[in-house]
Amino acid sequence: MSTPETHRSKGMDAQKHFPNSRKIYIEGSCSDICVPMREIALSPTQTSDGEEENPPVLIYDTSGPYSDPDVEIDLQKGLPLIRGTWVEERGDTEELDNLSSEYGRIRRNDQHLDSLRFSHARQPRRAKADANVSQMHYARKGMITPEMEFVAIRENQQREHLREITRQHPGQGWGAAIPRVITPEFVRDEVAKGRAIIPANINHPELEPMIIGRNFLVKINGNIGNSAITSSIEEEVEKMTWATHWGADTIMDLSTGKNIHETREWIIRNSAVPIGTVPIYQALEKVDGAPEELTWEMFRDTLIEQAEQGVDYFTIHAGVLLRYVPLTAKRLAGIVSRGGAIMAKWCLAHHEENFLYTHFEDICDIMKAYDVSFSLGDGLRPGAIADANDEAQFGELHTLGELTQIAWKHDVQTMIEGPGHVPMQMIKENMDEELKHCFEAPFYTLGPLTTDIAPGYDHITSAIGAAQIGWYGCAMLCYVTPKEHLGLPDKQDVKDGVMAYKIAAHAADLAKGHPGAQQRDDALSKARFEFRWEDQFNLSLDPDTARSYHDETLPKDSAKVAHFCSMCGPKFCSMKISQDVRDYAREHGLETREALDAGMVEQSGQFVEQGSEIYHKT
Amino acid sequence: MSTPETHRSKGMDAQKHFPNSRKIYIEGSCSDICVPMREIALSPTQTSDGEEENPPVLIYDTSGPYSDPDVEIDLQKGLPLIRGTWVEERGDTEELDNLSSEYGRIRRNDQHLDSLRFSHARQPRRAKADANVSQMHYARKGMITPEMEFVAIRENQQREHLREITRQHPGQGWGAAIPRVITPEFVRDEVAKGRAIIPANINHPELEPMIIGRNFLVKINGNIGNSAITSSIEEEVEKMTWATHWGADTIMDLSTGKNIHETREWIIRNSAVPIGTVPIYQALEKVDGAPEELTWEMFRDTLIEQAEQGVDYFTIHAGVLLRYVPLTAKRLAGIVSRGGAIMAKWCLAHHEENFLYTHFEDICDIMKAYDVSFSLGDGLRPGAIADANDEAQFGELHTLGELTQIAWKHDVQTMIEGPGHVPMQMIKENMDEELKHCFEAPFYTLGPLTTDIAPGYDHITSAIGAAQIGWYGCAMLCYVTPKEHLGLPDKQDVKDGVMAYKIAAHAADLAKGHPGAQQRDDALSKARFEFRWEDQFNLSLDPDTARSYHDETLPKDSAKVAHFCSMCGPKFCSMKISQDVRDYAREHGLETREALDAGMVEQSGQFVEQGSEIYHKT
Repeated sequence: MSTPETHRSKGMDAQKHFPNSRKIYIEGSCSDICVPMREIALSPTQTSDGEEENPPVLIYDTSGPYSDPDVEIDLQKGLPLIRGTWVEERGDTEELDNLSSEYGRIRRNDQHLDSLRFSHARQPRRAKADANVSQMHYARKGMITPEMEFVAIRENQQREHLREITRQHPGQGWGAAIPRVITPEFVRDEVAKGRAIIPANINHPELEPMIIGRNFLVKINGNIGNSAITSSIEEEVEKMTWATHWGADTIMDLSTGKNIHETREWIIRNSAVPIGTVPIYQALEKVDGAPEELTWEMFRDTLIEQAEQGVDYFTIHAGVLLRYVPLTAKRLAGIVSRGGAIMAKWCLAHHEENFLYTHFEDICDIMKAYDVSFSLGDGLRPGAIADANDEAQFGELHTLGELTQIAWKHDVQTMIEGPGHVPMQMIKENMDEELKHCFEAPFYTLGPLTTDIAPGYDHITSAIGAAQIGWYGCAMLCYVTPKEHLGLPDKQDVKDGVMAYKIAAHAADLAKGHPGAQQRDDALSKARFEFRWEDQFNLSLDPDTARSYHDETLPKDSAKVAHFCSMCGPKFCSMKISQDVRDYAREHGLETREALDAGMVEQSGQFVEQGSEIYHKT
Repeated sequence: MSTPETHRSKGMDAQKHFPNSRKIYIEGSCSDICVPMREIALSPTQTSDGEEENPPVLIYDTSGPYSDPDVEIDLQKGLPLIRGTWVEERGDTEELDNLSSEYGRIRRNDQHLDSLRFSHARQPRRAKADANVSQMHYARKGMITPEMEFVAIRENQQREHLREITRQHPGQGWGAAIPRVITPEFVRDEVAKGRAIIPANINHPELEPMIIGRNFLVKINGNIGNSAITSSIEEEVEKMTWATHWGADTIMDLSTGKNIHETREWIIRNSAVPIGTVPIYQALEKVDGAPEELTWEMFRDTLIEQAEQGVDYFTIHAGVLLRYVPLTAKRLAGIVSRGGAIMAKWCLAHHEENFLYTHFEDICDIMKAYDVSFSLGDGLRPGAIADANDEAQFGELHTLGELTQIAWKHDVQTMIEGPGHVPMQMIKENMDEELKHCFEAPFYTLGPLTTDIAPGYDHITSAIGAAQIGWYGCAMLCYVTPKEHLGLPDKQDVKDGVMAYKIAAHAADLAKGHPGAQQRDDALSKARFEFRWEDQFNLSLDPDTARSYHDETLPKDSAKVAHFCSMCGPKFCSMKISQDVRDYAREHGLETREALDAGMVEQSGQFVEQGSEIYHKT
C-alpha cells in the first residue's frame, strides 16, 4: 500500500495545464471570494481587411489550484483553505478538541497506520448546540452566503454577465429570478426551495463551492475508490486530481477495501470539489462484510466519522423498505445497487424496517451539524433494461420523496439518486416522476444505460441516456466508465468516463438553452471554419487528443495553419468554397433573406417560363 | 500503392470469428435463399435443482461469408454470387459485351493499371431496353422478389418468428402488415410505398440483401475511402471487411484520391453489404479538382461507370439549388458537405441551376436500369450547432421531397440524407420535417452531433443524437469516427465508430419496440446476473474488449466462473444478495404484487399506529 507521501513528486504530477490557457479569478463582493475560471486565448482571424480579434473564451474550471502555476501543490499538506474564514465568521460552529467518532479516534491513535496517515489533519468543526449550519438553512433565513455568491459567479460564463454580476453588491440580493444572468439571489432562492444544493461540509474548507440543480449547468460526478482486490491510496488521489482536471464536478469515493478512512482523508484534503461517499460501505467493512451485523449505533458513528473528515454528501439508502424488497424477486437482474442489496439483506435477516428509514431524523440531526447533503440512494434501481421503471423502483422513489420532506423540515440539503438501466422511451418518465414525487429536489442519475449489450462501451450506452435525462432536467450525471460491469476503472477509464459525461452534460446544457453554453461551440466552430487549427484544439474538451489525432496524418507544424486537412486533401476543400459563397453573396448583396427574396423574384418568374433551364446566363 | 493481390494472405486475415458462435443459414422458400445469422451458444444456468438450459441467441449478421469457416475466402476472386441466378431468372436484364462508360473502358484497357486491377471483373449487366429492374418497380407490380424474402427472414431474430415465416410460402404474400413478424409481403408493401429501400444493384450479385426503413431494424453505415493524402486499396478493402465484421450494414466508399475506380472494384467484389458512393467526388477527380469544369456529360459517364461496377446507392446532391446557396453566407460554418460545396461552387461559377437538378430525370433513367438507389444528399446540412435547422437546410429538404416524387414516378428507390450538427432539442423537428416533406422516404442521417466542443470524441457526441433520431424514426445512421474533423479514420477508429453506432441503433430499436430486439439485452443481463461471465462476453457487441477488460483485474480462468467481480470483491456481492431475496420471496409466497399486498395490509395498519418504529420484531 503506497500513499502520496511515499512519492513526493506526485504532487507535481497533479499539476497539469491546458494549452494556451491561463487561470483567472473573478473577484466577488469581497476579496476572499475568488472564483476560478480558465481563459483560453485565441488567435485572430485573417481577413482581406487584416486581422480581426477573437475574444478569449472563459471555461468553467473544476481543476482546482492544481492548474494554477502560482500555487505550490504539496499533497502532504493539502490544498489552501479558501472557505476557512467564511465558516468561522458565521460564528455558529466550534472547533472540537477531539474526533467525535470512536472509530475515528481508534484509527488516529493506531501507530501501525502512521505511514498511511495524512499527517496534517486538522481538528474537526461542528455546529454549536442547536445550530443548523446548512446552506439551505441560511438560504431560508434569507442569507446570501459567500458560497452562494461564489457559485453565482461561477455559473456565468459570458463576460458581459460576469461584469453585470460583479458590478453589483450581492449582499442585498438582486431580485432577478430570470437565469439569463445567474445572481446570488437566484442561487439563494433555488437553495431555499430545495431545487438546488451546494454540497459544502464545514470540514471541507478546501472546497471551491458548486451548485447542483436543474436551473444551473448540468454537473457530472466521477466515481473512484479501491476495493478488496485492487488499488492503493496513491492511485485514488491521482484518479481524483485526474478526473477533476478533465472536468468532474464532484467525486464519490466508493472505496470498499482496507484503509477507507485514511484514503478518504488524503482525498478530501486534496480536493477542491465536493466529495461524496456511501457510508454503508465502510460500515459493512467494520462488520467484516456481514450485512446482518450492521447496527444503527455503528452506522451513526460512521456518519460522524466521515462528516468530521469533511465529506460533502452521503448516499443514504433509506428508501429500501422491507415491503419493496420482495418486489425485486421477479426481476431479471434483482438488486444491483450495493447499498440497496446491503439494506435488503439487513431487512430480511432481521425482518425489520430499514434502520436508515427508522432513524432518518437522527441522520438529519447529524447532517445539519456539519452541512452534509443527502444523496438519497436508489437502492432498487433497475440493473437491466427488462427491469426499468418497475414497481420496486418507483415504490422506492415515492419513499425518497417522503424522506425529502423530512430532510427539508430540518433544512438539510437533499438530492435524489436515479437509475440505472433504462431504454430511451422510458427515460422521461423517470424525470417526471422524480420532479413530481420528490418535489423538484435535484435528480442525480447513473447514466442511464440505454442498452445492456455493450459491456466495455458503457460510457457510451449511458452517455446517450445521460444527455437525454440532463436535457429533461436531471441536475447531475454520475459517470459510467468503459470498465462498468467488468472491472475497476484505471486512469484512462476515468478520463474516458469523464469525457463522455462532459459531452452529455454539455449537450444537455445546449438543449436546455443554458445562457452562454453555446459560446464554446460557436468559438470552436468558427475556429474550425477559419482553419485556426490550434484554436480548435485548444477550445476542445480534450486538446491533447484532438491534436494527436490531427498529428497522425499531418504532423508538421505547417499543417496547423494549413487551409486544408487530410480528409479532403489540399486540392479541394468545402470550407474554402464556403468562403467563395460569402464573397459572392456580399458582391451580389444577397446576405439577408429579404435581399434574397427581392433578388430572386424576377428569376422565379423566369423559372416558371423556362422550366429546368432557369438561371442560364441571367 | 499496394493491392490485396500483393498480400495473398490478406484474404485469410479477413476471416474472423466471434467466440462460441456459429454461422447458420435460415432457408427460405427455395434453397438458394439462405439467410445468414450468427448463433451464440450459451452455457446452462446452475440452480439448486440442477442445470437449466439457456437457448442460443440469434444475431443479425453483417459479416458476410468471411465468418463462415466453410467458405474459402480469396479476395482476388471476390465473394460467391448469391444473387446471380435471382437477377438472371427475372429475365429483364442482359449481359453487355463491354463497359458502357468511356472512362471505365479507358481504365480497363490501361496496362499501367494491371497491377492494381481486380482481375476477375465480370461483364456488366443492364436492364433490357425500357425495362425497370428496381426492387420498387417489382414491389409495385406486386412481386415478392428473393431479395424481399431474404430481408424479411433476416429482420426476424426470434426463433418462433423464424419458424412462422419459413413455414409459409412467401410467394403468395401473407397479408400481415403487423410487424411483430416481418413478412415478405410486409417488406414488399413498404418498398412499394417508398417507406423502405433494398439497395441492390444488379451488378452486385455478391450482396446479401438488407432493408432500410423505419419499420425495420435501424441500420448503420460506415464510411471508408482514401484521400489524396493517405491510404491504399488494400487498407480500404481491409477497413470494409473490418467494419462489416463489427456490424456495419452498408459501406460508403468516399475515396477522393487516385485509383478510385480500381479501389471500388476491389471493394464491391468482396463486399456482402451494399456499397454507396458520392459520384461527384470521382467526377471532381476527373476534372482535376476544379468544380466549375464539371459537366453533365462526364458526370453521366461516371454514374454509368459506377453503376456497372455494382454500386448500390448514389449520394446525389440535387437539392443544392442556386437560390439556396446565398442563404449559407451568414452561417457560422458555411457549407460543410463536400458534395454540397462542389455543387454550390458550380452553380455560382456558371450562375446556372445545379445540373443534378436539371438532369434529375436523366439520372433516374440510369438508376432504374441497374437498380441503384438514390441517397439524396444534404449538401446544405449544418456543420455547426449555430447553423442547425436553418433556412438553407430546410429549403434543400423541401427540394429533396420534390425530387423524391420524381424518383418514385420512375420507381427508383430513394432515401434522404440528413444532418449533421444539431442540438438535442432540435433533432425531432428534423425527423418530422423529413417525414412530412419527403413523404416518409427513409431518412439517413450523419449523427447528428449534439455539440461542437469535442473533436476526438465525435463518435460519442454524435451517437447521442443518432440514438435519438433513430428512435424518432431515422432508418439508417451514418457513423462518425473519433477522427471526424481531424483526420482519416484508421482501423481502430472504424471499429470505434461502428461500436458507437451499433449501440445507438440498438438503443433506438429498443425504444421503438422492435420485436425481438430486447432478447439480446435480456440474455446478456441474465448471464450477468448468474455470473456466467463467458456468456456475458460472448453476447456483447465486442466480446474481445469485454473479456480483456475483465482480464485486467481478474485474468485467471477461475475468475470467469467466479461468483464475484473486482468491483465489490469476493466478500460482498449485490447479485448474491438478490439471490437471497428470491429465496426469501419464494419461501414467504411474496412473488406477486397481489400476494405482497395481501401480506402487507396488516403491517400497513400497524405502521399508522406505530409511526416510524413499524416492522420492529413483527
